[in-house]
Amino acid sequence: MKAATLFEALAAILPPANFKFAEEEMRPYECDGLSMYRAMPKCVVLPENEAQIADILRICHAHRVSVVARGAGTGLSGGAMPDPNSVLLSTAKMMRVLSVDPLACTAVVQPGVRNLAISETVAHHGLYYAPDPSSQIACSIGGNVAENSGGVHCLKYGLTIHNVRKLRVVLMTGDIVTIGSDGLDSPGYDLLALMIGSEGLLGIVTEVTVKLTPKPQLAVVAMASFSTVEAAGAAVGDIIAAGVIPAGLEMMDRIATRAVEDFVHAGYDCEAAAILLCESDGTPEEVADEIARVSEVLRKAGATDIKVSNNEAERLRYWSGRKNAFPASGRISPDYYCMDGTIPRAQLPRVLNEIAALSEKYGLRCANVFHAGDGNLHPLIMFDANIPGELQRAEDFGADILELCVEVGGTITGEHGVGIEKINQMCVQFSPKELTRMHDIKHAFDEHALLNPGKAVPTLHRCAEFGKMKVSQGKPMPFADLPRF
Amino acid sequence: MKAATLFEALAAILPPANFKFAEEEMRPYECDGLSMYRAMPKCVVLPENEAQIADILRICHAHRVSVVARGAGTGLSGGAMPDPNSVLLSTAKMMRVLSVDPLACTAVVQPGVRNLAISETVAHHGLYYAPDPSSQIACSIGGNVAENSGGVHCLKYGLTIHNVRKLRVVLMTGDIVTIGSDGLDSPGYDLLALMIGSEGLLGIVTEVTVKLTPKPQLAVVAMASFSTVEAAGAAVGDIIAAGVIPAGLEMMDRIATRAVEDFVHAGYDCEAAAILLCESDGTPEEVADEIARVSEVLRKAGATDIKVSNNEAERLRYWSGRKNAFPASGRISPDYYCMDGTIPRAQLPRVLNEIAALSEKYGLRCANVFHAGDGNLHPLIMFDANIPGELQRAEDFGADILELCVEVGGTITGEHGVGIEKINQMCVQFSPKELTRMHDIKHAFDEHALLNPGKAVPTLHRCAEFGKMKVSQGKPMPFADLPRF
Repeated sequence: MKAATLFEALAAILPPANFKFAEEEMRPYECDGLSMYRAMPKCVVLPENEAQIADILRICHAHRVSVVARGAGTGLSGGAMPDPNSVLLSTAKMMRVLSVDPLACTAVVQPGVRNLAISETVAHHGLYYAPDPSSQIACSIGGNVAENSGGVHCLKYGLTIHNVRKLRVVLMTGDIVTIGSDGLDSPGYDLLALMIGSEGLLGIVTEVTVKLTPKPQLAVVAMASFSTVEAAGAAVGDIIAAGVIPAGLEMMDRIATRAVEDFVHAGYDCEAAAILLCESDGTPEEVADEIARVSEVLRKAGATDIKVSNNEAERLRYWSGRKNAFPASGRISPDYYCMDGTIPRAQLPRVLNEIAALSEKYGLRCANVFHAGDGNLHPLIMFDANIPGELQRAEDFGADILELCVEVGGTITGEHGVGIEKINQMCVQFSPKELTRMHDIKHAFDEHALLNPGKAVPTLHRCAEFGKMKVSQGKPMPFADLPRF
Repeated sequence: MKAATLFEALAAILPPANFKFAEEEMRPYECDGLSMYRAMPKCVVLPENEAQIADILRICHAHRVSVVARGAGTGLSGGAMPDPNSVLLSTAKMMRVLSVDPLACTAVVQPGVRNLAISETVAHHGLYYAPDPSSQIACSIGGNVAENSGGVHCLKYGLTIHNVRKLRVVLMTGDIVTIGSDGLDSPGYDLLALMIGSEGLLGIVTEVTVKLTPKPQLAVVAMASFSTVEAAGAAVGDIIAAGVIPAGLEMMDRIATRAVEDFVHAGYDCEAAAILLCESDGTPEEVADEIARVSEVLRKAGATDIKVSNNEAERLRYWSGRKNAFPASGRISPDYYCMDGTIPRAQLPRVLNEIAALSEKYGLRCANVFHAGDGNLHPLIMFDANIPGELQRAEDFGADILELCVEVGGTITGEHGVGIEKINQMCVQFSPKELTRMHDIKHAFDEHALLNPGKAVPTLHRCAEFGKMKVSQGKPMPFADLPRF
């Protein structure tokens, strides 16, 4: 750990403004969107091109110093949280759109390009980049790749994995590889899928070839009110069972609609126990037909009221409430903790009931806002960190929700990643044999485990200490038999 | 290699009818759909359940004997070709549909279940399994998972990877892992995507949770004639650029339509240089609207004639020609070699021209039949193996086509896999650094490289001997520097 030599080597390849080690300069990087956890890195580097990234990784590899990559820092699971022994590598200076091919419907962009900037750049071709996380105005495509981000339209248009064709990646050794292709499939093992969602543990992405989608001629939102949360949850399944794949299918409960309505005046029914927002897009004929079918299903499912957006301004207003649900919750509670889990759609009514029971048990309010069509929950647990014990209760409440998701056949994350936040729950999700495969894959890409240490995939020791371990083939594994990492 | 002990151990766990080692009994397993390569295995095992598969792999692992898994044997790249030193493991006796959940739109099936049998089983729920390889009446879901199979509808409905939620897999050690989940996403590295398309090199699948799709109310095919192949190729791009994602978008050239028309009388225009088949599905309103839009695009793109199917019988007749293109080619040529490569759609006109030039160069006819919407080519090279030199010329012609696919930014396979057929072209597609990652992944799952040896991922030595090696970062890699495997 020869810090002087490391710093000298980094200083030799980076302009002074792109290499920061003074505490006040590093302060902006001490956390990501999971702001309850903070740490200062060893130093911050801001490379401007792929060659600099390769040099930085080669230097760090030689010094056996770990590296944490950071996109826009909007992540909610602490995936970009620094480590005192690590170099923090920000891709913020790599924000060029390198090329756009409107015929192939693709664009090649650097990792620091903002999600929404891609759509803005290609808008004059009638195209856009489909995945739309709520943070899309700020989050970067590199971070989206690391987290396999989704958004309100991913039910119809897919997650990041479904909208990225090719990546250039620098491995920890400084080697550069290209994975994926400009064609629709690629031979050999699916390294592209492996890299997407790997949370910065396998390599650092320097170029992303994204798939662009033609902008639909028209989009219309139907907003339905329900007198019980269960009825709204059941209606979600009915829509899908009717053969409709809506462009978006979102649910908010009364705690959420009331918080939002005071804030953005989206026109929500605050008496309803829950509302559903169901978007249809396509040609005017397709949209009219789909909205009619959806409305019929919603009515049969017991909707007490259905409103349909009459124009684009109204549609955007309906969505503005959903997209501002997180900041709106901040107005009614000093602190909130946004969870992210995915369940089979059929389990929605049961899980919503159990979350309500947990809310009682922990004495904390919880607003439910989620991508209902995907079964991707985002419960917002409200608490006050200044009241002793509330932060801990919020964390325990959150952990219980995640374990409930696993219990009903779902997963501990939909789109926010594992990071540091959910690393213990990985022990509930996966057996030691499954986690061992993941460690072996890590080893294949990053032999000395220098990329983003301590994130995403727990050691088996950590799981044993956490005390919850998925049993393997019906037999609990004794602590002493666990492989060591 | 204690054969007696191995055979004794296998005989102890399998009923006699499920363990074959007499030459005449093993003959049906000597090749898959790539029938120009044949070999006899050491023995054939036909396990009936997961526990038997785990036992077989454990025994083979202990004896360090390799194992080749085989589904229905319809694969076209030799992925299931036996090896004289390997046990051939057929999943043909594992053909039960274990459960169907119509609300979640999923079914859990064993690997030997035929692709079409899944759709037949769930038809009364108004559901079907979307990926439809031409061999769907015979091919098994286990083989589909191994090859990441597509079909004529995969442009809209995706490949196998997009239609599988969860797998149970036995690793070479006999350990059983579950990957994927009943939710829409899964944390950690994407082991599900890694396993799908891994051609039997990482594990043997024992249960597949497939996603089911609601059957559309109506499907209609528009069939357009073009006076040049280039115009038909360009029309494909125009349809996609117009924002339409057809349920199917297929192209056949005149050599293909003439061969087929004599055979199945599908009603094809045999004077056209090429025809496009474009399917629309959905509600009657959606279909009417989409067919009108597609027809307009086709007319503008220079279609000389457009026919639209008037009823289901006519639609199936139009497709029957496309689905029988391979056997029809067998009627006009003693032998044919079906290629499979994928290119960016915009490169269609250029690649079709170059294939025509290669056809001249090699003096062999080539019918072009392909999933145009995906840019997935299936050139059928016609030859007579009894004429000395023609098989070699056909293979060289095929290799040139694959390298052309890579050159224009595409890949050497769309849906048939690499197997033994395209293993040399993997050296053209990937750099040594990229192949090294694949070998390291193999090692993570199968330390002694016992599963399907010699398939899918070439050793770097093999690439060096093949004489074509993708250069890494602009510098050719000297033979002496290659890692050894």
